Amino acid sequence: MENAVKRIGVLTSGGDAPGMNACIRAVVRSALGRGIECVGIRRGWSGLINGDIMPMDSASVSRIINRGGTMLYTARSDEFRTEAGQQRAVNTCKLLGLDGVVAIGGDGTFRGAQELSKRGIAVVGIPGTIDEDIVCTDYTIGFDTAANTAVECIDRLRDTMQSHERCSVVEVMGRHAGYLALYVAMAVGATAVLVPEVPYDFEHQVVEKIRRARLGGKTNFMIVVAEGAASGIAVGDEIRRELGLDPRVTILGHIQRGGSPTAHDRVMATRMGVEAVRVLAEGRSSRVICYRDGRIIDMDIDEGLRMQKTLDPEELAVMETMTGV
Amino acid sequence: MENAVKRIGVLTSGGDAPGMNACIRAVVRSALGRGIECVGIRRGWSGLINGDIMPMDSASVSRIINRGGTMLYTARSDEFRTEAGQQRAVNTCKLLGLDGVVAIGGDGTFRGAQELSKRGIAVVGIPGTIDEDIVCTDYTIGFDTAANTAVECIDRLRDTMQSHERCSVVEVMGRHAGYLALYVAMAVGATAVLVPEVPYDFEHQVVEKIRRARLGGKTNFMIVVAEGAASGIAVGDEIRRELGLDPRVTILGHIQRGGSPTAHDRVMATRMGVEAVRVLAEGRSSRVICYRDGRIIDMDIDEGLRMQKTLDPEELAVMETMTGV
Amino acid sequence: MENAVKRIGVLTSGGDAPGMNACIRAVVRSALGRGIECVGIRRGWSGLINGDIMPMDSASVSRIINRGGTMLYTARSDEFRTEAGQQRAVNTCKLLGLDGVVAIGGDGTFRGAQELSKRGIAVVGIPGTIDEDIVCTDYTIGFDTAANTAVECIDRLRDTMQSHERCSVVEVMGRHAGYLALYVAMAVGATAVLVPEVPYDFEHQVVEKIRRARLGGKTNFMIVVAEGAASGIAVGDEIRRELGLDPRVTILGHIQRGGSPTAHDRVMATRMGVEAVRVLAEGRSSRVICYRDGRIIDMDIDEGLRMQKTLDPEELAVMETMTGV
Amino acid sequence: MENAVKRIGVLTSGGDAPGMNACIRAVVRSALGRGIECVGIRRGWSGLINGDIMPMDSASVSRIINRGGTMLYTARSDEFRTEAGQQRAVNTCKLLGLDGVVAIGGDGTFRGAQELSKRGIAVVGIPGTIDEDIVCTDYTIGFDTAANTAVECIDRLRDTMQSHERCSVVEVMGRHAGYLALYVAMAVGATAVLVPEVPYDFEHQVVEKIRRARLGGKTNFMIVVAEGAASGIAVGDEIRRELGLDPRVTILGHIQRGGSPTAHDRVMATRMGVEAVRVLAEGRSSRVICYRDGRIIDMDIDEGLRMQKTLDPEELAVMETMTGV
Repeated sequence: MENAVKRIGVLTSGGDAPGMNACIRAVVRSALGRGIECVGIRRGWSGLINGDIMPMDSASVSRIINRGGTMLYTARSDEFRTEAGQQRAVNTCKLLGLDGVVAIGGDGTFRGAQELSKRGIAVVGIPGTIDEDIVCTDYTIGFDTAANTAVECIDRLRDTMQSHERCSVVEVMGRHAGYLALYVAMAVGATAVLVPEVPYDFEHQVVEKIRRARLGGKTNFMIVVAEGAASGIAVGDEIRRELGLDPRVTILGHIQRGGSPTAHDRVMATRMGVEAVRVLAEGRSSRVICYRDGRIIDMDIDEGLRMQKTLDPEELAVMETMTGV
Repeated sequence: MENAVKRIGVLTSGGDAPGMNACIRAVVRSALGRGIECVGIRRGWSGLINGDIMPMDSASVSRIINRGGTMLYTARSDEFRTEAGQQRAVNTCKLLGLDGVVAIGGDGTFRGAQELSKRGIAVVGIPGTIDEDIVCTDYTIGFDTAANTAVECIDRLRDTMQSHERCSVVEVMGRHAGYLALYVAMAVGATAVLVPEVPYDFEHQVVEKIRRARLGGKTNFMIVVAEGAASGIAVGDEIRRELGLDPRVTILGHIQRGGSPTAHDRVMATRMGVEAVRVLAEGRSSRVICYRDGRIIDMDIDEGLRMQKTLDPEELAVMETMTGV
Repeated sequence: MENAVKRIGVLTSGGDAPGMNACIRAVVRSALGRGIECVGIRRGWSGLINGDIMPMDSASVSRIINRGGTMLYTARSDEFRTEAGQQRAVNTCKLLGLDGVVAIGGDGTFRGAQELSKRGIAVVGIPGTIDEDIVCTDYTIGFDTAANTAVECIDRLRDTMQSHERCSVVEVMGRHAGYLALYVAMAVGATAVLVPEVPYDFEHQVVEKIRRARLGGKTNFMIVVAEGAASGIAVGDEIRRELGLDPRVTILGHIQRGGSPTAHDRVMATRMGVEAVRVLAEGRSSRVICYRDGRIIDMDIDEGLRMQKTLDPEELAVMETMTGV
Repeated sequence: MENAVKRIGVLTSGGDAPGMNACIRAVVRSALGRGIECVGIRRGWSGLINGDIMPMDSASVSRIINRGGTMLYTARSDEFRTEAGQQRAVNTCKLLGLDGVVAIGGDGTFRGAQELSKRGIAVVGIPGTIDEDIVCTDYTIGFDTAANTAVECIDRLRDTMQSHERCSVVEVMGRHAGYLALYVAMAVGATAVLVPEVPYDFEHQVVEKIRRARLGGKTNFMIVVAEGAASGIAVGDEIRRELGLDPRVTILGHIQRGGSPTAHDRVMATRMGVEAVRVLAEGRSSRVICYRDGRIIDMDIDEGLRMQKTLDPEELAVMETMTGV
């Protein structure tokens, strides 16, 4: 049965994330190891629509395991949201004789995979996005690198804050999910953290935390803000107005997207890439590779997209214990 | 019932690991948050024997979350292996009125905790060791930092290897456990990896891998060796003799022990520290904090020490797929 | 004659810079080596006014050579600009019996040193500021670390730009001096750089550079802006309006101020600190330590502050050659 | 007159050094900017002998400014030391119509350049070697990156030393020149440093330094050894035998050769590359680009190779002041 699968494609879609290259490498090499040919599709779904492809052999993915970004480029495609666009993508798959596609990206990528699956193309999704906003998996490729980048930047800010006795507001990525902000805040010992999942309450979430910290002897205050919770600049202004402090605001922005992937991102990307090929080789489709309960598994895409994630209340409680003290 | 616990001690023992400071900080601050006093015990079990202590308040653990090493120092103690030594440690606990002790370290530390528990002192262990050689937990504090340090060093070696078309042998830590070596090898895309869990077979594990890589077009070969599997220098000599290559041997040694902890190590250290205090506050003893199936739990120390770990065969298989190709 | 100097003070003033701690360490230890006592003055000139001091022995500067920020804190002081404030500072020197003061900081710090010198206190300045805006020296402590921090951040942006085919605008520090921006731009291979020394001409400095790059086959454009030349956000808006690109704007801000100092900053800080103590020990005053023509020398503060620096035309020409191509 | 130069070659030879790629990029792009064609010669002099070339356009050096190693590979060539080899290299130059060659490397590379110049080929050398062992220049490309790599590794060792109260011996590169070791020792605040320029005297250089440090209250001792001064392992053994300490020995080896070049190395490489092309374009030959007295200049190769460098006595004195205290 495995023999049915002769040729697959691999693409990256949505925002890029460190580790995507390591994942592409794993898909290509484990496919070759199974005797399956692999085609690279450039610029995500848009590349599948337009037949923007490149042949992939083992050497083509040499020396990329440690590179940020994605060698296959990525793009968002409006056309792929239309029926016509999806049909053109299906046609490309047929023309190329692709028995399956591995799509690395976020929620939007998985919705695309879902559509393509409905039209008869075997697709397996791999979660790759720095803000870990995919509900069905406990890990998304790129998160660890983004967290470490943010932590290193904030460590630098702390050095200079401590020299001057100051307040700092740092806006990190996370439009819909606050896990990255929460994680980073815990790792830097932040005074307070604002996440989109908790309604913004300046008095309770910021003022009280800063006060408790000041009363406890601290003279430096680090406020971490997920971009989806509030604007870092607005929070800074409010602190200036309400507390008479003069906070410095830093917006990390796309710095968090780049950089050589951490060991964790490379290993997860490799393991997920190998797993995705195994699923396709076993003749399954419409699956998404997930990390759950410490294991890499695969799950039905529809089921995965239906799930609802909330912030782990236990981690929120730990954060509550550890901040502002 | 929680009120019973009024004062606890915290110590680090065995080899130090990045994240130990973050863990000490979490123990101190979460204890204080529960109204429990906290005493720092310096130089591990030896400090408990000799009453080498320091008072800990919230400020005493300021600005250490990002520091490598351990502010409480660590040492190995022969005396603590004797009955007399253990009795003196118990006496110190009684003198200081310690209702419990949090001991951060490796297997040896847990055996010490076991002994002390038998003598009536409530002890909770937290796994802190860079080579992840503790059988009952899927994570030990310091592993992620050590892995990233090794990966960064090997990335540097790859730069210069690629300029010269060479072979490199890198010896990483891991006397009894090869997980660190395996993980690092996967993260750098090594040609071959030697671990203590698999009997050393030069022909099969090294020669064949290098040959397959060379036949596949590669001209650079990276061999990762866990110190417990073989000596890096010996492997280098054998490659020189048998294959006519001129490998460079690098021994990373204690570089892997130091450095500012990664985000992951800080977060795990914080969460495990909070959990250990919770277990003590709930009046339990002889427990070890573990990370299993993606969750932080606590387990009986005896049970934990009885467990046997082998390398995850699935990860070995992934490694087999991904190396030498 | 050297014996005249028995006790000196050391302070850091103005914005902090990586390497200040290494410099404090060198001042303290080389003074002690000459049998001169050393007093730390906290929070810059303001600390000298208020007698905010700490005793310094050899151990007090242990383990700080690799730390960002300044252990003596720094602050800006309005009071020190008044005659009354300066007189109070002189009084503190007399009370403490300080035979000299080493002041580490920027232009403003040197003006303070000048005033104090006029009132009979021996003062030697050491240039410490990340944006290298001090005219009389070719190097200021902190510059190298700030440059490397900016370069690492921009390298990360390049990863993600290359995945998406984009334009990036990065604002770096440099209110009055563009050398940091120019240096960073050269190190990252920027498409264009805007510095305060050259009047802002969007058409010539940005549009033409981007066009030349695009015609030369590039699809990614990195624009580096010194904060004193233009606002990064304004430049981004203009690019959007005039060229139809959608640039990402990043403002590095105070991230550039922190971090463990580079080897270069530690060595320069050490050598300059040793030199400042030598100058004071030789009974000289009103001097500033400079790096000129590859050598560490000392110069009269008045003379130093009178000098005018312009951007090295040769470096500008190299930049012109290397950008936008 | 400049028009005479129509086509040049560029090669890297000897050990690779971070920044070589940035230098190749600068040579290629500034040549193109002057209307001069540029050919890449692979594997150093050996590639010139064998005609191992690649065409270079502007795009061929895109995205390499931040890469360690050398895209042109490097090798040592015994054949080039023979008259026949040199003649074959000259023939390649004639066949390809090369009006000049830029050779990036160390002393050996410059001797090659000298020979080739004698045979009528215009050659300009650029100093690229991590151990700064070229006598005529104050800077060699790669030194700053190697120093920072060593410093980062030693900072990690210090973390773990401080947890355990230990002695560490670190062997750094430098077969004939101790400047890298001296510089690194100053940057990490080493207890002692051994350089090839000073005859090895264990009692005076190591024992006395450790004793002074211990008497001054230190419990950690960091000994930096240049590979040309002594074997790190031998020094460790002697410390064990004579002082009863149990030192950890680390040999950094080729880790120092790799890694993304620092800002300083990229800027120096760029400026030196531009200068080399200018010299060739002006019709000069047999020159080496040097950094002297804070300026980039060019010098006659014969004169450069005749110079004798000794360690700056002032830096040695500073080191003497700052270590062991």
